Amino acid sequence: MKADRIYNFNAGPAALPLPVLEEIQESFLNFAGSGMSVTEISHRSKWFDDVINDAVTRVKRILQLDDRFHVLFVQGGASMQFCMVPMNLLGAGDSADYVNTGTWSTKAIKEAEIQGKSIHVVASSEDRNFAYIPKEIAFTPDAVYAHITSNNTIKGTQWAQFPDTGGAPIVSDMSSDIFSRPLDMDKFGLIYAGAQKNMGPAGVCLVIIRDDLLARTPGDIPTMLRYSTYANKNSMFNTPPCFAIYTVQLVLKWLEETIGGLGKMEELNRKKAGLLYDFIDQSDFYRATADKDSRSLMNVTFRLPSEELEAALVAAALKNGMGGLKGHRSVGGCRASIYNPTPLAAVESLVDFMKTFERDNG
Amino acid sequence: MKADRIYNFNAGPAALPLPVLEEIQESFLNFAGSGMSVTEISHRSKWFDDVINDAVTRVKRILQLDDRFHVLFVQGGASMQFCMVPMNLLGAGDSADYVNTGTWSTKAIKEAEIQGKSIHVVASSEDRNFAYIPKEIAFTPDAVYAHITSNNTIKGTQWAQFPDTGGAPIVSDMSSDIFSRPLDMDKFGLIYAGAQKNMGPAGVCLVIIRDDLLARTPGDIPTMLRYSTYANKNSMFNTPPCFAIYTVQLVLKWLEETIGGLGKMEELNRKKAGLLYDFIDQSDFYRATADKDSRSLMNVTFRLPSEELEAALVAAALKNGMGGLKGHRSVGGCRASIYNPTPLAAVESLVDFMKTFERDNG
Repeated sequence: MKADRIYNFNAGPAALPLPVLEEIQESFLNFAGSGMSVTEISHRSKWFDDVINDAVTRVKRILQLDDRFHVLFVQGGASMQFCMVPMNLLGAGDSADYVNTGTWSTKAIKEAEIQGKSIHVVASSEDRNFAYIPKEIAFTPDAVYAHITSNNTIKGTQWAQFPDTGGAPIVSDMSSDIFSRPLDMDKFGLIYAGAQKNMGPAGVCLVIIRDDLLARTPGDIPTMLRYSTYANKNSMFNTPPCFAIYTVQLVLKWLEETIGGLGKMEELNRKKAGLLYDFIDQSDFYRATADKDSRSLMNVTFRLPSEELEAALVAAALKNGMGGLKGHRSVGGCRASIYNPTPLAAVESLVDFMKTFERDNG
Repeated sequence: MKADRIYNFNAGPAALPLPVLEEIQESFLNFAGSGMSVTEISHRSKWFDDVINDAVTRVKRILQLDDRFHVLFVQGGASMQFCMVPMNLLGAGDSADYVNTGTWSTKAIKEAEIQGKSIHVVASSEDRNFAYIPKEIAFTPDAVYAHITSNNTIKGTQWAQFPDTGGAPIVSDMSSDIFSRPLDMDKFGLIYAGAQKNMGPAGVCLVIIRDDLLARTPGDIPTMLRYSTYANKNSMFNTPPCFAIYTVQLVLKWLEETIGGLGKMEELNRKKAGLLYDFIDQSDFYRATADKDSRSLMNVTFRLPSEELEAALVAAALKNGMGGLKGHRSVGGCRASIYNPTPLAAVESLVDFMKTFERDNG
């Protein structure tokens, strides 16, 4: 850790790889010899073409996408996708399945319903406060898609395997675990992910969409809400969020060249999460909130014996150079978000700190 | 000019004030003592609250907005506003006026029509390739709003005064001249402006909306497309584009504290544009394309005797440290975009260069 930097366990916006931040800083007044900041170059310039094309190429290579898939950069975050997915994919007479695993799934369901789309909530873990991922789900055979939230930041759950839908392509909100592990893309029709957890700053949302779903885009909805607008113009129908896309490009480069790709990334993520969960499991002071088989490798949610102790831990951690450990305001408790960029050393420091805190307060 | 920087005449994304870029660079690894980059801090933190609240306060102070006006930050650029304006403001039986002054107005009109909204194009300058701003327009007395594009980047025209609509509030796309001059806000119901010309990087759009128009927001459109969603949550219903808003905040601070506010800014803008137009007008080699009374203070469009000479000028200028002088691909010619951040010295250098180029090629 650099002397004046903290270990950042925020849920999003979240930590970015330090070498990425350093590269941005270094070239901030003169990007790639242009004599301009990356925030000042035209999106119609060769400099930005290189940025966005490299970002798209890396997404395709990292996820081993075949030619059926299009890589788009859209504004508005995952929240805009909650509305764009049903608006683009569900016509009259169509319906889709949704699985409700918490706050973000609930919002996605709501935005489909606002538009009067036909959807079926085929499973929910609301009965136990979303502490688990539902199993043995009866998906609808002729659904246009089956929507899931692959990782749930607030409740600290994650789909360990992706479900067999019986045919419908999965549409997944992967905002908080995109690029954290290899994916079998044969299961997916559309993936969307706000950048600000695993791959960049807030302000851009990655959308990966398969040809057959892209072909559903209606021609009579507003231009900026159509997936085809982005697919036809390499995400540059209008000025894209250049700085955010540039940062994503650098994070993907780091993922490929420094980490070594998704296999290595998953290995490291399992090691980080394992360290933290193993420590919590052997303790009587800390208690993990999610079911063991549904635990997130990205967001480790846990409680202490009292809310006072939880507040004390968050404050003491910050004094020790570890920030962002407060649970989401809707559930309380503690949460360590350990996305791709969070180094192993940060988790080791956190476990050491938690040991000391337990000794002093347990 | 710093040794390795160029003078940037790009139409957008465009030049930013050098002191702003330097401040971002300086604090990029540790923002405001947080131990995190500004791209890593939570949007729910006191650090970001300070950023967005200061940005909103500065917008209100600079434009002298009274309590009727709300200041919002929305993603998707002005192109998203082309659809959000009619979607939010026009209900069944309502209609609006539009004035067509070029590419951007045409797109705004198209997005209203796609939604089946009732609009009237009450004036257009298409008859002379949009080289002027229409005068003596018969606005519709009971229109919900009258839409104009205050500055037209491609054709180099600008509304010198805002029209008397007979009552309907003006809705203006001010993407390319927001904060370039004082405004009589009594005329306006809604102003929107993509940041990437006069106030920041691409990735955020400023929306200023008056209470009575905000009250028209329907409850049955998707949450992210409703102005009320942004107004009710200080633009943080979901994660906002933090870095872009932060940069806007710094540019507004520069506008107030270094330039001295809108009066001084307009004075400087008139001086810069005057220098360039006066030089072009006395030359037989260069020819300004917009009518004199409709000329933009932001985008100076001009032609040379041949397309070959135009291409030669753009190339020679770049060799002399001046970039972005090529006209928009849809019209050709040359264009010097001289937004707020462009220093007087840049325009002086450009005029000197153009003199030499005329001497050598005229």
